[in-house]
Amino acid sequence: MKKIIVQKFGGTSVADTEKIKNVAQTVIREKNNGNDVVVVVSAMGHTTDHLVKLANEINPNPSAREMDMLLSTGECVSIALLSMAIQATGHKAVSFNATQIGILTENVHSKARIVDIKTEKLKKNLEEGNIIVVAGFQGVTEDGEITTLGRGGSDTSAVALAAALNAERCDIYTDVEGVYTTDPRVVPNASRLDSISYEEMLELAHAGANVLHPRSVETAKQYAVPLRVRSSFKLDNMGTLILGVEKMEINRPVAGVAADLTQVRIVVREIPDTPGEAATLFSYLADENISVDMIIQSYARKEANTNDIAFTVSIDDLPKAQEVLEKVKVKLGAESVKFDDDIAKVSIIGAGMIDRPGIASTMFKTLADAGINIKMISTSEIKISCLIQKADAQKAVKALHEVFNLGCDEIAEVKGTLPDV
Amino acid sequence: MKKIIVQKFGGTSVADTEKIKNVAQTVIREKNNGNDVVVVVSAMGHTTDHLVKLANEINPNPSAREMDMLLSTGECVSIALLSMAIQATGHKAVSFNATQIGILTENVHSKARIVDIKTEKLKKNLEEGNIIVVAGFQGVTEDGEITTLGRGGSDTSAVALAAALNAERCDIYTDVEGVYTTDPRVVPNASRLDSISYEEMLELAHAGANVLHPRSVETAKQYAVPLRVRSSFKLDNMGTLILGVEKMEINRPVAGVAADLTQVRIVVREIPDTPGEAATLFSYLADENISVDMIIQSYARKEANTNDIAFTVSIDDLPKAQEVLEKVKVKLGAESVKFDDDIAKVSIIGAGMIDRPGIASTMFKTLADAGINIKMISTSEIKISCLIQKADAQKAVKALHEVFNLGCDEIAEVKGTLPDV
Repeated sequence: MKKIIVQKFGGTSVADTEKIKNVAQTVIREKNNGNDVVVVVSAMGHTTDHLVKLANEINPNPSAREMDMLLSTGECVSIALLSMAIQATGHKAVSFNATQIGILTENVHSKARIVDIKTEKLKKNLEEGNIIVVAGFQGVTEDGEITTLGRGGSDTSAVALAAALNAERCDIYTDVEGVYTTDPRVVPNASRLDSISYEEMLELAHAGANVLHPRSVETAKQYAVPLRVRSSFKLDNMGTLILGVEKMEINRPVAGVAADLTQVRIVVREIPDTPGEAATLFSYLADENISVDMIIQSYARKEANTNDIAFTVSIDDLPKAQEVLEKVKVKLGAESVKFDDDIAKVSIIGAGMIDRPGIASTMFKTLADAGINIKMISTSEIKISCLIQKADAQKAVKALHEVFNLGCDEIAEVKGTLPDV
Repeated sequence: MKKIIVQKFGGTSVADTEKIKNVAQTVIREKNNGNDVVVVVSAMGHTTDHLVKLANEINPNPSAREMDMLLSTGECVSIALLSMAIQATGHKAVSFNATQIGILTENVHSKARIVDIKTEKLKKNLEEGNIIVVAGFQGVTEDGEITTLGRGGSDTSAVALAAALNAERCDIYTDVEGVYTTDPRVVPNASRLDSISYEEMLELAHAGANVLHPRSVETAKQYAVPLRVRSSFKLDNMGTLILGVEKMEINRPVAGVAADLTQVRIVVREIPDTPGEAATLFSYLADENISVDMIIQSYARKEANTNDIAFTVSIDDLPKAQEVLEKVKVKLGAESVKFDDDIAKVSIIGAGMIDRPGIASTMFKTLADAGINIKMISTSEIKISCLIQKADAQKAVKALHEVFNLGCDEIAEVKGTLPDV
């Protein structure tokens, strides 16, 4: 049995016919290494935006089912063209959409989760010597309804296929050269990490380093699929390998620094201190599908017998949260609800910090020395996050990057869609 | 049980979002008449041309399988958008591609024939009050391979669906107002036919009046599906109803006059007169998939013991035919092969000519009086065709249209894609 490599190319990598021909070369290179290759592609460049625009011209509130029918066509164009490009070089290739393979999902439109992938057709075609080109981002229900996987969907398709096929590795080709210690636009000597654990990558991703969608990293972790993030354009650069922490030698306490400017802090003040008030508060938010990130409950004020609860939500969820919290305020008898959008969450992430005391204090002291006020702190096993003022975000990232010695001698080349800081 | 009406809208009818909204209105109008409606749509405007261009940039000789994967996306965009447009008006609609319904075809790419259509999902969705929007032009094999139906594919999809659902009628909405007695650009007072038989329509279509592809008419005839050709833009005009000759009262000997300028005459001269030479000749052409239209074998020349065989093929097939005929010439020991592309085939068509003698002689006399030389004649039960010089085609059509009293008082309004004469 040959080893199977799953490759994934995003929309910018297949934006025009010249780029599709380049992708074909990258695919063939892997095939010529003696591996079986399964390629997952997204829709070409701005195809999805164009289709969404057409839909909105026709119906301001299109049904999710018809939207999935519409958007899933974009990937089908890409797979056919990439197959043709591979065939033009004399190699065998065959394209499949999600229905043809059987990438089964829940019966939910626009953000379905994959529940199973049939491998029969894939294995048969690999045995026949084909390179297989698969439409990312889409799935099919047991009833034959077409679904899409939502944000990060094509990455998730690729990782799930790699898991189902027991692939050697899943290579995510993108327009950045890998995972960096921090945003190279903020810290020019940010260094590319050769490897990082799933857990660290998840914390980095949640903390705002949107190279990979957390969902694909979670799937990779669940099935122990080694994931490589690498550049579509610099093939001699091996990018960053993401794998299980047990396979890594952790010789650094901190892997990276990230900043997230997309959150809003909410404080619900003077909630009468009765059992279950936190549960009530957060179940109301959960019912509205609002994800909560940091949560801090202060000590009860003995004299008043009330609690303050502070937490952060995505700025996208703010209107919904405001609506819900008006009701919650009345329900809990809280004094007031305050919103603060002048915040940045700065985090240091590292699986190595577990055994090394003093990392947190170094972080706090560094921020203090830089004159940065900390509004809130939250920690996990491999992450420490501080909420600070937006204006201090860059300064904080630079100072933390330096104090933990994350820089390299080279100036990183910055391209593509790194997060705004 | 409600009556089922199948409607078909071509690419120009759904070329942009405004036009798609107009189509939605036409669909709803039929639904509001109390009928169940199944709508078949083609790809938007120039979508197919654009996709073909992309494919050619990537691979000058793309595989038919991947081409079908690519082109089938165009109709899937249209069905999603039309469903959204119908839903925007408050009606229930659901779109299906060929795979979802089970429009089963032979396992042939780019010109598959429909072998069966599953009606379970369609009937269930009609019962639930949905307007069903179906992707035309595409099918699926038993193995789940995506196929396309080739030229006239969406018309054929619509007629086959109407047959499978035992529909009351199949309405083909197009950019012409119906079937005319001849090309209104040649004869301004050409009249729209209220009704015409399948057979007449087939002969008209083969003779060059390309309002409908013959294939869809043949399917309609086979399953006795009444077919209406009507304008997308003038809904008060009922167009032309095409139906079985047994349901018509034929009160006119000639229904229409057509000219076809896309043929080439080929004469194979002095073939030694042995049994089977015609079979040999045409089986060679059939092996190369070359369709032959008119065939004339002259009387054997007794003195030389040879035959001349003349026939016509489509000008598109000429290069292939020339290649084949070089071999055939040697094989049969023929003296020479001559090609003549300065020809037009002018035909009069009418189911009423069967019982009325003198139609053929009227045709020949009319052409003679107009000073037009006849190069070849061929007849069927309901058609008489004469091969003449290209330059005489317009004059011939005008003269025949007049002698058979086909004109009306009004000047036909000419739009869209009538055949060039």
